[in-house]
Amino acid sequence: MTKVVLSMSMSLDGIAGPDVPDEDGMALFEEILGWVFPLRSWRAQQGMAGGEDTVDSKVWQENFDRFGPQVIGRRMFDYGYPHWGENPPFHAPVFVTTHRGQDTIVKEGGTSYTFVTGGLAAAVEQARAVAAADGKDVLLAGGVSIAHQALEAGLAEEVVLHLVPRLAGRGLRLFDTARADLRCTEVIQGEGALHLRYDVRRPS
Amino acid sequence: MTKVVLSMSMSLDGIAGPDVPDEDGMALFEEILGWVFPLRSWRAQQGMAGGEDTVDSKVWQENFDRFGPQVIGRRMFDYGYPHWGENPPFHAPVFVTTHRGQDTIVKEGGTSYTFVTGGLAAAVEQARAVAAADGKDVLLAGGVSIAHQALEAGLAEEVVLHLVPRLAGRGLRLFDTARADLRCTEVIQGEGALHLRYDVRRPS
Repeated sequence: MTKVVLSMSMSLDGIAGPDVPDEDGMALFEEILGWVFPLRSWRAQQGMAGGEDTVDSKVWQENFDRFGPQVIGRRMFDYGYPHWGENPPFHAPVFVTTHRGQDTIVKEGGTSYTFVTGGLAAAVEQARAVAAADGKDVLLAGGVSIAHQALEAGLAEEVVLHLVPRLAGRGLRLFDTARADLRCTEVIQGEGALHLRYDVRRPS
Repeated sequence: MTKVVLSMSMSLDGIAGPDVPDEDGMALFEEILGWVFPLRSWRAQQGMAGGEDTVDSKVWQENFDRFGPQVIGRRMFDYGYPHWGENPPFHAPVFVTTHRGQDTIVKEGGTSYTFVTGGLAAAVEQARAVAAADGKDVLLAGGVSIAHQALEAGLAEEVVLHLVPRLAGRGLRLFDTARADLRCTEVIQGEGALHLRYDVRRPS
């Protein structure tokens, strides 16, 4: 059964990313996501050899294998697109929520960008249809405002957290005003993060 | 070696307690601390029989055995004092940070309340001296503003978190603007919370 999963890295004080992409924003980005960059599995996704064979790398690989299509926000797309290049690290269809419609962009290695103007729920439904046909799950990959919207709207059925042992002290909080009751289904202690899985319980 | 430990329950979105002690504040308090009340070890501290013998109960007991003196804020004291009664659940010296000095109050069962006007660092030092003589650790037990002050001032050497699987959506955040690098030293998956221990690394 295809699941829609919110998966992000977060500091112990709940920070998922920078407010502003300035110099300190880059430092914060490194604090929260820095555990990923040395991993062999992450490097392989980017087309790079080498890297560390750790628990973190194994978890990252399993997450990658599990997910088919991804849903991302327009801001993340605009910010990332120039960096992701001709063979982007997604290797799957990416659905971008946006107010400005445009034609699908097809890249190498299985990545395509499809722009959905009907809101986040519509993007999730399109991604779910593709994932179901493939026996995969859908990844809600960010940014932070997509995470807020998904939780508020009850679109995330599972939350995967990579909990980084830091107090960041500033930045954007992964969780905003959504209320939910969850059930912890997995805990894996890695080197750079604690990997947590939670099912989101439906409000009774 | 005596350690000063900040130990609190927190929701997944970082909430440690209510802003306001109204009806919703009590509901939030129950969301975040409700896992404690059925435990056999917690009930024994309150002088009550029965309760659940679970992983959570064992963790709570070990925490209790480890700590000697506690440091709490004036607001927590004023709020709790009438409820804690003549045989309070601390069973140890409690140091209360306050602007208003007053004589020490001695209760039954090993609890005393000593009022320290020299600031949080002074209260921690007094508690540390008592703990060291006893081979115990010092518990920074709250409220939330004491947690903020302790982290900002670098007074907490270890952080013990009972991470409750909920998005509370409102309330006071346990972590504020303090920055720190931590090291996860223990993870125990309980029934009502995930029990996490972190050493606070000194800034280099």
